[in-house]
Amino acid sequence: MRIKRAILVLCSVLFQTLLCWGQSSSSNPSSQPGLHYKEVTGNEIQGRTTHAGAAFHRIDTAQFADIPANVKQLYTHSAGLYVTFSTNSTQIRAKWCTSPAKTYNNLAAIAFEGMDLYIKREGKWVYAGVGRPGSQDCTESTLVAEMDTEQKECLLYLPLYDSTDKLEIGVDSTADFEFSASPFNHRIPVYGTSIVHGASASRPGLAYPARLSRMSGLDFINLGISGSAKMEPQVADMIAEMQMDALIIDCVPNCSPDNITERTAGFIQKIRSEHPDIPIIAIEGAFFESGNFNRKIAEDMHLRNERFREEIAKLQKSDPHLFLIGAEGLMGDDHEGTIDGTHPNDLGFDRMIQKILPATKNILKGYNLL
Amino acid sequence: MRIKRAILVLCSVLFQTLLCWGQSSSSNPSSQPGLHYKEVTGNEIQGRTTHAGAAFHRIDTAQFADIPANVKQLYTHSAGLYVTFSTNSTQIRAKWCTSPAKTYNNLAAIAFEGMDLYIKREGKWVYAGVGRPGSQDCTESTLVAEMDTEQKECLLYLPLYDSTDKLEIGVDSTADFEFSASPFNHRIPVYGTSIVHGASASRPGLAYPARLSRMSGLDFINLGISGSAKMEPQVADMIAEMQMDALIIDCVPNCSPDNITERTAGFIQKIRSEHPDIPIIAIEGAFFESGNFNRKIAEDMHLRNERFREEIAKLQKSDPHLFLIGAEGLMGDDHEGTIDGTHPNDLGFDRMIQKILPATKNILKGYNLL
Repeated sequence: MRIKRAILVLCSVLFQTLLCWGQSSSSNPSSQPGLHYKEVTGNEIQGRTTHAGAAFHRIDTAQFADIPANVKQLYTHSAGLYVTFSTNSTQIRAKWCTSPAKTYNNLAAIAFEGMDLYIKREGKWVYAGVGRPGSQDCTESTLVAEMDTEQKECLLYLPLYDSTDKLEIGVDSTADFEFSASPFNHRIPVYGTSIVHGASASRPGLAYPARLSRMSGLDFINLGISGSAKMEPQVADMIAEMQMDALIIDCVPNCSPDNITERTAGFIQKIRSEHPDIPIIAIEGAFFESGNFNRKIAEDMHLRNERFREEIAKLQKSDPHLFLIGAEGLMGDDHEGTIDGTHPNDLGFDRMIQKILPATKNILKGYNLL
Repeated sequence: MRIKRAILVLCSVLFQTLLCWGQSSSSNPSSQPGLHYKEVTGNEIQGRTTHAGAAFHRIDTAQFADIPANVKQLYTHSAGLYVTFSTNSTQIRAKWCTSPAKTYNNLAAIAFEGMDLYIKREGKWVYAGVGRPGSQDCTESTLVAEMDTEQKECLLYLPLYDSTDKLEIGVDSTADFEFSASPFNHRIPVYGTSIVHGASASRPGLAYPARLSRMSGLDFINLGISGSAKMEPQVADMIAEMQMDALIIDCVPNCSPDNITERTAGFIQKIRSEHPDIPIIAIEGAFFESGNFNRKIAEDMHLRNERFREEIAKLQKSDPHLFLIGAEGLMGDDHEGTIDGTHPNDLGFDRMIQKILPATKNILKGYNLL
């Protein structure tokens, strides 16, 4: 049995190699001549509402001592954080370290703890390459190589579901390199569940707030916290303190029906008290495909959305800046848009965006944010 | 550092739990009362061209001694294999064992070694639930629960990128259960790369041959072999021996330009000699998004498709049953359809299907296969 197992492990290594065919640029050599690395130290990191606290955390966890421990921990994940820079390098590499955590059965490691690079071409952000995580906590990977030497604007997304502890960006030693300001306007946090957090996009740049930003030019900030978007009063206090121009709330799947009835009004009113005139857009939970035949899941999801609709409708009577996007059509109609019945795959995210983006743009135009 | 690491590992376990919110039905209890398990022993396994050889292999590896060892090994993966049955059980569980291999950074474990269940509703196959692999080689998982007791037709897909060594299906001990014949007509092998094999679909039922089958009612048989679809003469001999009503060849990304020039004619002519009248549909390789800025990858992919087009055009002069589907539009036009620049995510697969399915149906209608 031991020999059989050894052969199987050997085969596994062989297949790992085979799976990466055509990807020789993504190998992880321990050194590379003619390269210069720029460390990302703090203020260059975009996609967060503050530059206080640890460089790669989404919030200053020390500032908000009262929020639940799991919420605080989840905000140490680098979901939605990005770095922008311009360079004329022919290659872009990254060295980065994450926590020892490893991915889940419903998330590819590239999304969990990999890097994702876009480059601007003819006014649009275009996929350029990923940084593949290895088996160790620290990885070195080529994101793209063999480019021409024209000056390029680059946008690098950090890992979704792990904390990032260190990041260096490598370019040709002779190339220009300059960190740049965020290319996205205004500040629109998206508070929500694992779906906002990025499960189960295939890579960091495909989490839906990141796609919304590239498609609209607005800065949608990822405040997704897997399994933990329960509208606690302390979290309302935290969000209320943030600088923002609009807010999206997409937390229904994490809240019990009773949570929704008890907390929605207080949560939104607290934030509203600090931001009297901004648009707040609430989104119902997309129907769980795991409820296609499981009647309990279907009924439960139906009840959560019903309760949420009721609460939002009550608030809308005295709040003209509160909007609701309904669940209908968020996952399309072929039931193929999830990896596991709950978390959208990239097809499901694409359908969410097809509904959420035009509805959101329409609302934001009324506030001169577009 | 050890304490920090221990805390991080603990947190990782906590997040694993959180990520699975709403998925309590997918827990893996060691026993479950009121259940009866049916073992899948061999002939019930569909999606392969033969019932000879090991139960869960796609080909009888003993029969084809000459094919390259890595090709042979890859055909032990259960990609595209499925089991169909009818039951009125309120729940469906699975116990299965795979090899010790673990997934790659560009594939979620659910796709690599998980199970994927569909149930027929109003004439259509609808997603019902996944079997989540655990950390061990053998797993027990609830795919769906809390159903009504109407009789249902079920379709269970096996793991894509691992071998399956054992499979049992669990239903209520009082329920009816019967294995059924394949619901799909005719036999259309799809010979190709990791993309055919299933990388990087989010779950087994979303590999593109499986989707084509559910959408057309035809039996597209997965002959994808990651990194190894190189049109060797021995593989042509093997495919030529298979019973089939049509054939799809989607292997360009695994072949060097020289491979293509040297092997395409011989490969197709060998198969044609045994199947003089069937439609053979060749597909160009979808443009690699990793070539968006990497000029070498872009040129290389362009050259491969050009060579393939030339070879197919030459053969078409004397072969009226040979067809070509071009690369244009296979990945859409927003460059978001891959996980890593090479392997489609579910959005990329959806776009491939939008082009391949109507083109294929149109051809197959001419042969009375639809």
